Amino acid sequence: MFESAEVGSKVDKKAYAAREPALREQLLATQRRLAVAPLSVVVVVGGVEGAGKGEIVNLLLEWMDARGIETHSLWALTDEEKARPPMWRFWRILPPKGHLGIFLGSWYTQPIIDRVLGRTRQLELDVALDRMLDFERMLANENTLVVKLWLHIGEKTQKRRLEKLESDPDQSWRVTKLDWQFFKYYKRFARVSEHALRRTSTGETPWHVIEATDWRHRDLTAGTVLLEALKQRLDKIDATPPPKLEPDLPTPKTVSILRALDLSHKLEDRTADRRLLKHMGEISRHSRLLAEAERSLLLVFEGPDAGGKGGAIRRVTRAIDARLYQVVPISAPTDEELARPYLWRFWRHLPTHGRVAIFDRSWYGRVLVERIEGLCPEEDWRRAYAEINAFEQQLCEAGTIVLKFWLWISPEEQLRRFKDRQATAYKQYKITEDDWRNRKKWDAYEAAACDMIEKTSSEDAPWVPVEADDKNWARVKVLETVAGTLRKELDR
Amino acid sequence: MFESAEVGSKVDKKAYAAREPALREQLLATQRRLAVAPLSVVVVVGGVEGAGKGEIVNLLLEWMDARGIETHSLWALTDEEKARPPMWRFWRILPPKGHLGIFLGSWYTQPIIDRVLGRTRQLELDVALDRMLDFERMLANENTLVVKLWLHIGEKTQKRRLEKLESDPDQSWRVTKLDWQFFKYYKRFARVSEHALRRTSTGETPWHVIEATDWRHRDLTAGTVLLEALKQRLDKIDATPPPKLEPDLPTPKTVSILRALDLSHKLEDRTADRRLLKHMGEISRHSRLLAEAERSLLLVFEGPDAGGKGGAIRRVTRAIDARLYQVVPISAPTDEELARPYLWRFWRHLPTHGRVAIFDRSWYGRVLVERIEGLCPEEDWRRAYAEINAFEQQLCEAGTIVLKFWLWISPEEQLRRFKDRQATAYKQYKITEDDWRNRKKWDAYEAAACDMIEKTSSEDAPWVPVEADDKNWARVKVLETVAGTLRKELDR
Repeated sequence: MFESAEVGSKVDKKAYAAREPALREQLLATQRRLAVAPLSVVVVVGGVEGAGKGEIVNLLLEWMDARGIETHSLWALTDEEKARPPMWRFWRILPPKGHLGIFLGSWYTQPIIDRVLGRTRQLELDVALDRMLDFERMLANENTLVVKLWLHIGEKTQKRRLEKLESDPDQSWRVTKLDWQFFKYYKRFARVSEHALRRTSTGETPWHVIEATDWRHRDLTAGTVLLEALKQRLDKIDATPPPKLEPDLPTPKTVSILRALDLSHKLEDRTADRRLLKHMGEISRHSRLLAEAERSLLLVFEGPDAGGKGGAIRRVTRAIDARLYQVVPISAPTDEELARPYLWRFWRHLPTHGRVAIFDRSWYGRVLVERIEGLCPEEDWRRAYAEINAFEQQLCEAGTIVLKFWLWISPEEQLRRFKDRQATAYKQYKITEDDWRNRKKWDAYEAAACDMIEKTSSEDAPWVPVEADDKNWARVKVLETVAGTLRKELDR
Repeated sequence: MFESAEVGSKVDKKAYAAREPALREQLLATQRRLAVAPLSVVVVVGGVEGAGKGEIVNLLLEWMDARGIETHSLWALTDEEKARPPMWRFWRILPPKGHLGIFLGSWYTQPIIDRVLGRTRQLELDVALDRMLDFERMLANENTLVVKLWLHIGEKTQKRRLEKLESDPDQSWRVTKLDWQFFKYYKRFARVSEHALRRTSTGETPWHVIEATDWRHRDLTAGTVLLEALKQRLDKIDATPPPKLEPDLPTPKTVSILRALDLSHKLEDRTADRRLLKHMGEISRHSRLLAEAERSLLLVFEGPDAGGKGGAIRRVTRAIDARLYQVVPISAPTDEELARPYLWRFWRHLPTHGRVAIFDRSWYGRVLVERIEGLCPEEDWRRAYAEINAFEQQLCEAGTIVLKFWLWISPEEQLRRFKDRQATAYKQYKITEDDWRNRKKWDAYEAAACDMIEKTSSEDAPWVPVEADDKNWARVKVLETVAGTLRKELDR
């Protein structure tokens, strides 16, 4: 792969002068198209030190309108980043629609360095790379164009560059010990990078390896690659008719995990109170151990309206010190959230080490309400299952304990509760037109929930179906599960 | 002040049982009013360790709907917070409209502790306290209710509580060495706190000192105080007619700082290029010194349409490594920004140590376009001058170098440039209906700008009026000023 970037490509002064003005103008014009398009752009700039990564960023900012560009140098993690899953630092800086984000360093940096330094094995690198591809595929599907540039120079050129930088008093700060350390690994770094690039070059997000020995060639190539990628994607958007938004109303199977639930389970008040108290004590003790264990807890509550999510959540929070938890209610997204990939608004609220996040509704809205009401195109909710699984896997691997509760009631019980709410003055606010409307689609919600549980319940992030016709039973089951899971995860 | 919180106030079990259900219900009902009101609420919980600050937070979260409440424990600064002005950590967590933010610890914590430990003198504490008052007055004016609770217990009670907590294996983690250290300072802490509370208890944001020896009294009082404050403010909102929004069109004076500018200044291309190059070199060198000096640079560009802001910004950015700066274009606020105090959307973009932020338009919109177009009530833009001065003073004290450029052109020159833009294909996007509309209010903009410069130019954050009819002259003046200021600030 890199051989073709060591062939001595050059652009002479005259050819550069002939090409540069038009390229700049086209880039600017294309950026203006981008500004009003439903698209955001991430430009990843990778390569070895001395190849001119910083220069390329300077160049793009000079050629284009810096007001629509955010630049991010991704080196040492901040402590806020360390307390969350590794990908959080990239999610938090995803540019909104109409903007470009230029990332110096990327999600590839750490896996490549770890492999070069022998901290990981080949297999681990490959697993990491496959995930990066999943991530980029998701970004592509979520209206984010990823342009990946890799600046390559040969070993001798790198040595010369590092020496030259070091001898220039204005530039020497840019060459660190680490750079020389890496230089010793040049061949190994080249081999690992080449493998990584080959494995992660897809039709949708190819790597563009740019020979960076001659700066004119490097600059023109980088600018042209970005321009072409932008134009192609914008043209595609213009040519694509808006997606059809149609409700999908699946029919429930006669035998299913939800139909198999025994909704007649009941608990006496006294038994329930005793057991709740016991589990609350356990949760209280264990939640305080999260910080030292560098773990966090994330609970998801889903289920039909009036299913008892709020009541169950209140029983959980009562057990936890208020300084340690946050309840995250999910309703309509803000415009800043709409301008970014779907999962962005959930990444924002991930708990740090030591903390508990309780989601009252969640990312599963995509495969429930959005599917059924036709709020997103079919292909979007269809691919969401895999995206969600990948998301939750990252959480678990970063030490987050994930539990997802599906509070399930019978339609008769829901009706009883709706009527009760209407009749009780201080509960009336809890019932809206939407609730009655959703109720008409009961069957579809049931079937969608079954699909969801089937496709997204995993050992690490299991769905816990809860028989919720009896509130005592439901609350005890929720707390028992939380307490038992915390015990299992933290008592080691 | 604290004497009245050591009188032995108690609530017996029966009285508590009689009062609690109604209080909870009223709090919930009032929270539902808040959810749809143009108001956000910050509850500050202060007091000595052992008085039950955490318990109060738990209680409010249990009594109210946790879905509308964000809890923040403000202890050690994260490294991202350390790299910005001290108040940034509070600004970043201000709750949006309809929500409550509960702050355990607040902007009072550090000034009080510093004084208790003798790190600061009385005068410094008082200056800090006066600023907190300014901050709270601003919040109050920006639709944020601040409710300040101070939990008080006597010295003996504190000792008993700390000992009791320490001996409970489930609670001992809450008592740190620092707590015992502070206990030794109990009297001094009480004296300093009392002074701080008295000085910062105003009609609008009073401190509520709550005797916290008896937990029933403490809980009912805290709940009642919050309920009353909420109701009072919501009633006031309901009773207040929406503010009148009227354009304010001031008339320029015949003699003014802008009229005194000599717009005939010109520079030959060659002279300009030579000087630009020189200053760019200086800026380049000095901008790299910011990180080590723990300083940052913030540039504001304001001025009429077609005044040359973009061109001047491009000359500045060309001199700075792209990894070090961010251009922040200010246009319409997002809904997340509209849901918080006016300055929130600028605090978000403050540069960290070592970095440069360039604002293309800024918080001055409030006293320019918002004043003239009647986009905010008169009282809002009138108080903005003082708020902006306080804001910029904080920036400067935190090591940010602040420069504000007013690029001023004659109406004739603007017309020439508008026509030129219309005639040039690739510049047409730069001219909109708004531009022609604004032009008709030229005089008002001129007068508003004079008011602004007069009221907000300070030694630390000066306005630099730039004669901009000649682009060469303007750009050289901007770069010369930036280079000179960096030199003065960093060559020490």
